[in-house]
Amino acid sequence: MSILVVGSVALDTVETRAGSVKDVLGGSATYFAWAASFFAPVQVVAPVGEDFPGEHVETLKQRGIDVSHLQRHPGGTFRWHGRYGDDPDERETVAVCADAFSDFHPRLSESGRKCRYLFLANVDPALQREVLEQADSPELVAMDTMDLWIKTQREAVVGALGTVDILLVNDCEALDLSGKDNLVLAAAWLRERGPGAVIIKKGQHGALAQIGSSFFCIPGYPLAEVVDPTGAGDAFGGGLMGCMAESGKKDEEVMRKAVVYGSVLGSFAVETFSLERLMGLTREDVDRRYEEFVELVRF
Amino acid sequence: MSILVVGSVALDTVETRAGSVKDVLGGSATYFAWAASFFAPVQVVAPVGEDFPGEHVETLKQRGIDVSHLQRHPGGTFRWHGRYGDDPDERETVAVCADAFSDFHPRLSESGRKCRYLFLANVDPALQREVLEQADSPELVAMDTMDLWIKTQREAVVGALGTVDILLVNDCEALDLSGKDNLVLAAAWLRERGPGAVIIKKGQHGALAQIGSSFFCIPGYPLAEVVDPTGAGDAFGGGLMGCMAESGKKDEEVMRKAVVYGSVLGSFAVETFSLERLMGLTREDVDRRYEEFVELVRF
Repeated sequence: MSILVVGSVALDTVETRAGSVKDVLGGSATYFAWAASFFAPVQVVAPVGEDFPGEHVETLKQRGIDVSHLQRHPGGTFRWHGRYGDDPDERETVAVCADAFSDFHPRLSESGRKCRYLFLANVDPALQREVLEQADSPELVAMDTMDLWIKTQREAVVGALGTVDILLVNDCEALDLSGKDNLVLAAAWLRERGPGAVIIKKGQHGALAQIGSSFFCIPGYPLAEVVDPTGAGDAFGGGLMGCMAESGKKDEEVMRKAVVYGSVLGSFAVETFSLERLMGLTREDVDRRYEEFVELVRF
Repeated sequence: MSILVVGSVALDTVETRAGSVKDVLGGSATYFAWAASFFAPVQVVAPVGEDFPGEHVETLKQRGIDVSHLQRHPGGTFRWHGRYGDDPDERETVAVCADAFSDFHPRLSESGRKCRYLFLANVDPALQREVLEQADSPELVAMDTMDLWIKTQREAVVGALGTVDILLVNDCEALDLSGKDNLVLAAAWLRERGPGAVIIKKGQHGALAQIGSSFFCIPGYPLAEVVDPTGAGDAFGGGLMGCMAESGKKDEEVMRKAVVYGSVLGSFAVETFSLERLMGLTREDVDRRYEEFVELVRF
């Protein structure tokens, strides 16, 4: 079943302990889409500028990702410049240029409206709503968000919780949004506002999910080196939604497996800059790491 | 099979966000012993001062913990005054009075020497060695340590790794001791120095173990409140060694279960100040939380 994601397609400049890269392919929708494409067809809804390299579009197309909703805007592509500290879970935004989003209003085509699985990545809550309103009663809707929207549009973000099945956020966002200082309390607070499942990404420490009234935890995959954490959370979302779409079910059992597939894709994403590692993967690689997670927590 | 622990029996003053307590029963050997006592007989080797309340000794005795190696010393009991920040994994030592250890030399009785399971808690490496040398070829030896000894007696700590089967340390200690900046690399470095298993406690984030060449991870138990993290690591050690001693085996399968029992006891320990929660538990409570861990990571 087909998945639609609205988010950013970006050019990233990233500095980590392992080195730095300039203007490489990035963006929440890009990471999401590639990760989800191991499981199901994906459509990407995002603005790009006139400066966005055609070769990137070609790469996505060749992967089978539907780019017909990529809207070219006059002006620049979304650019993000980030720097990570010694702790890969700590990052600083050095610069961001979001002009591409300034007058972006997604218009879903017939096939876009009919997508059964909808992922609202970390864009402006108003944009998330525009996409959701055009969707033709999707089977499953998940949303992410980010510190910026929690700070500037808290009410809109909290309101959006009532419209989705799954909230996928990182630990800081869960605490900020709920005003709690404990993830268990935050998950309960967030679930009460709508989503049947709240999945909290904890970076290198794995993920904590509350699915209905059950808790599910998965540790981080033990990596000897994290090259670049950028996109890990979005790749997590792609693995999660991909697994859900592939199964066609949305019960707790499938959701637990989906959280593990999310962790698998997130763990691959951080092994290189940009999408290099994701692009080199086969479905067999993905399933092999899933089996490693089985072994990792077996007792 | 019987377990012997050398460590501290202390009077703790603790400040956390949840409140504060003064001169309550604490110490690494105390937490360890209570946690281990759910599984097997335990003997405690530690100094106490003349000021140590007889009622505490009575409480341990009534629990069936062998206190015949508690050595009364002129002067004060080991006292620790700690303060925790908003992040329960961050703590500051406000004051410590370790006079009780200044001329403490453990003398194991016949039954002490014959203990099959030996836990060297976070005391001076020289003391750990004294106990190990008196033990009569134990079945399994595990050691803990702490930042103080890594800073002041690094060589002795590293040397001790060659004499034990299991190293149990927290994440900061693993990084400090190995000089690495990644837990996977740290675990490998530490294992190369001797212990067949390295178990790294990550506080609220669970534990990462390298057992032979396999990794095993267990997430932290989702708690809505951490009242006092003191003793969690020692209770973890008690659950770990207790499970090993009860099974009488030391293969990877048992060790994985033992890490989970360690996590169970550690998670109980933080729910109250001092040993209050541990003291109110039954073995059924312990096994019930073990089953909750099974459910927590099931997929």
